[in-house]
Amino acid sequence: MNKEKNFSKWYSDILEKAEIIDLRYGVKGFIVIRPWGAMILENMYQLYEKALQKKNHKSCFFPVVIPEKNFKKESSHIKGFTPEVFWLQKVQGEDKLALRPTSETAFYQMYSLWIRSWRDLPLKLYQRANVFRYETKATRPLIRSREFYWIETHDVFATREEAEKQVQEDIETTEEIMHEKFGIPFLPMKRPSWDKFAGSVYTIGSDVLMPDSKLIQQPSTHLLGQNFSKAFNIKFKDEKGKEEYVWQTCYGPAPSRILASVISTHGDDKGLVIPFCIAPIQIIIIPIFNTKNKKNVLDESKKIKRELENLGLRVEIDDSEKRPGEKYFEWELKGVPFRLEIGEKEIKEKKLTLFTRDTEKKETLNMRDLPKIKKFGDEFDSRLKKKADDFMKDKIVNCKTKQDLKKAMENKKIARVNFCSIEKEGEKCAEHVEKEIHAEIRGTLANKREHPKGGKCIICNKKAKEVVYIGKSY
Amino acid sequence: MNKEKNFSKWYSDILEKAEIIDLRYGVKGFIVIRPWGAMILENMYQLYEKALQKKNHKSCFFPVVIPEKNFKKESSHIKGFTPEVFWLQKVQGEDKLALRPTSETAFYQMYSLWIRSWRDLPLKLYQRANVFRYETKATRPLIRSREFYWIETHDVFATREEAEKQVQEDIETTEEIMHEKFGIPFLPMKRPSWDKFAGSVYTIGSDVLMPDSKLIQQPSTHLLGQNFSKAFNIKFKDEKGKEEYVWQTCYGPAPSRILASVISTHGDDKGLVIPFCIAPIQIIIIPIFNTKNKKNVLDESKKIKRELENLGLRVEIDDSEKRPGEKYFEWELKGVPFRLEIGEKEIKEKKLTLFTRDTEKKETLNMRDLPKIKKFGDEFDSRLKKKADDFMKDKIVNCKTKQDLKKAMENKKIARVNFCSIEKEGEKCAEHVEKEIHAEIRGTLANKREHPKGGKCIICNKKAKEVVYIGKSY
Repeated sequence: MNKEKNFSKWYSDILEKAEIIDLRYGVKGFIVIRPWGAMILENMYQLYEKALQKKNHKSCFFPVVIPEKNFKKESSHIKGFTPEVFWLQKVQGEDKLALRPTSETAFYQMYSLWIRSWRDLPLKLYQRANVFRYETKATRPLIRSREFYWIETHDVFATREEAEKQVQEDIETTEEIMHEKFGIPFLPMKRPSWDKFAGSVYTIGSDVLMPDSKLIQQPSTHLLGQNFSKAFNIKFKDEKGKEEYVWQTCYGPAPSRILASVISTHGDDKGLVIPFCIAPIQIIIIPIFNTKNKKNVLDESKKIKRELENLGLRVEIDDSEKRPGEKYFEWELKGVPFRLEIGEKEIKEKKLTLFTRDTEKKETLNMRDLPKIKKFGDEFDSRLKKKADDFMKDKIVNCKTKQDLKKAMENKKIARVNFCSIEKEGEKCAEHVEKEIHAEIRGTLANKREHPKGGKCIICNKKAKEVVYIGKSY
Repeated sequence: MNKEKNFSKWYSDILEKAEIIDLRYGVKGFIVIRPWGAMILENMYQLYEKALQKKNHKSCFFPVVIPEKNFKKESSHIKGFTPEVFWLQKVQGEDKLALRPTSETAFYQMYSLWIRSWRDLPLKLYQRANVFRYETKATRPLIRSREFYWIETHDVFATREEAEKQVQEDIETTEEIMHEKFGIPFLPMKRPSWDKFAGSVYTIGSDVLMPDSKLIQQPSTHLLGQNFSKAFNIKFKDEKGKEEYVWQTCYGPAPSRILASVISTHGDDKGLVIPFCIAPIQIIIIPIFNTKNKKNVLDESKKIKRELENLGLRVEIDDSEKRPGEKYFEWELKGVPFRLEIGEKEIKEKKLTLFTRDTEKKETLNMRDLPKIKKFGDEFDSRLKKKADDFMKDKIVNCKTKQDLKKAMENKKIARVNFCSIEKEGEKCAEHVEKEIHAEIRGTLANKREHPKGGKCIICNKKAKEVVYIGKSY
């Protein structure tokens, strides 16, 4: 497996060899997520849901089917989504039913029943759900699938100001979880108006860099404004008794897609490297025994396992009949952060051999220092993050001319350039970039205003209103 | 709300008033699960999944769609399920696709690829998933829906003996979680052969009593034997290199359906009573303040909240502007196990007022005794369980004659009777029970062999081979 030389092959190989998924289910775009993948996914879900709950979101579950008439209520939404929808065969007595591609039109129908007064606001709900898109292009496991596993939040406020604050909070949640925990840096990009979510006022996508230097959109958050509240008649009475339409936002992190970035960003030629905080097994204990000392070594291994578990860690002992070398190979392939080797010598000296997956260092750990592994785990995750941050930082280059921009794209960089506008009037320049330079205007930085400082648009040479980022994407 | 007088109305009312679900989604059999219901469900899932993991099950995720050709492989399975399936509109390049009603035919196709040798066994996987049944009869929220939220385990063994052990382990898991934790007693019933799962050798359903004295089937576990392994060609090489078909079981607890039993069993005329172990809020703190002492009372409330949270408890403060009486009413309706009232007097005396939802007792709790609430919570759950156990025990009556049996059914009891056979030859007697007595043979006790002691079948008077339970069901 050679990640740098052939990322695409490396990615397919690792998914199969580390038993993350199985592609042989036999229906295009629908994959089986195997236990090793499912356990990582579950840990990702738990961290994400906890973060949302801390920010006053409550969970709920909506049906998987959405009547066609719901889609029709918001005209740009139906235009954007209809081609991508799976429909059920006629169900007696029902409107045409779609499998949810996203659930705005399911939630907001109920919101119009639930929301009456300012006392009902803000309303912040999320659901953990699988969603479906009828992709006709080539699918790619976890990256572009027809079924994926996500979270969608649907938040409602009394004012635009509060809604815009929520959009910023969503970016912070992405930062807190995807970047700080999973070690995946991103550019929060306010998308050009021609590239926003169907039915939104504006969209902020989190652009993540893949090892092949292409960008992939991870969690996006949308200011829906009053577009849906007008379409679904969601009104509230304010404190003075005046009726108003609510302001809405939605946010959609997809753990199954983020898993693709986690695998791609941190993995190496030996296999996966899973962040400590989401590793199904954080420490694998390899007992090294012969027929004589087997019982003793296994007993000691169990003692160590219990001690680590009491610290809240996820630990397993590999007591299978394979040779130690074979076990090392397998657990490195599966990306377990730490390996503890324990044999007669270790027991006698009260010292263990500790192997760390990312640095590939072997060191000696005094048994009484076992609790330090928690701290090592934090450091492990910090290293992964730092490495990913450095990779991304290195990729962003300022470009002043079209020539610069072309070169940057050839060198697989992300260009930071002055640009006329990300509203309608900039669309022509964006088309030029797409056709001539085979790259995309990804947007402006959404959590910090960057000024073009009187510069000119890199394409049309008119006065630049924005600093935008340009790259190639999935 | 009067549970005893009109259970059916009480059930609908409480689901709405306690904000468990919303029926107004507009598609028959598809309901919205609101936050209060979703949070209980989530806690149920977590306890269930943890128990399965402890028994060496690993999670995975399978696609929601299953190709028709998969169903066709096991002939009795397709006969049993085809009428109940939702189909997708034609998807280009694919076989006809169903929404999973259950996932045997999805899992086992992959099992035939994954299993090669005795080293791969046992294989014990589960998935948390929503499943779909095209119910044509009247639906009933959480009880009979077209979409429900369940767990399905699919276990594979080298021998029939191990598989049968797994069936018993599944019954124990139901006992451990549904009975011990959620307080719902059940009869593990080995179903008559005419009533087993489509494709199984035998089925064990967990019969739970509803307040209207009807039985509802909760988790069922199935010995699939080699029916599916032969249909899907799932073979393994044993230690001697001989190829054999595997032995299989599956088990399907549906938290959304169990929730119906939890609500129905423990609730009373004031509302829900949620077991402590799955209550989204275990303790609600009601601060009692006026404009002068508000800050002081709220500060003290927060201190108590923190202290309880540090014990690992789920606690909220209701600091809304409603009157205390209104708050009491609401949280009792929502079934929160404990309420702590705290005002100036309580702070001065360092004593809190503790209200317990099931006993409706108010008592004084010394602030330094706060940690006792954990123990109180266990006692709370024990009381709920005891009450449910007593209700069920009281319902089971031994019947010797048809006359007795008729009377028992009129008096809304469960009859325990001698019966000729639960194999094919007993089907006629079962039909008689159904037509003449409007009741059902539910099966024989599955975790304990009961002997008819030379008695005769209550219907045909022939020699009885079994002791069966008869009741009315949902």
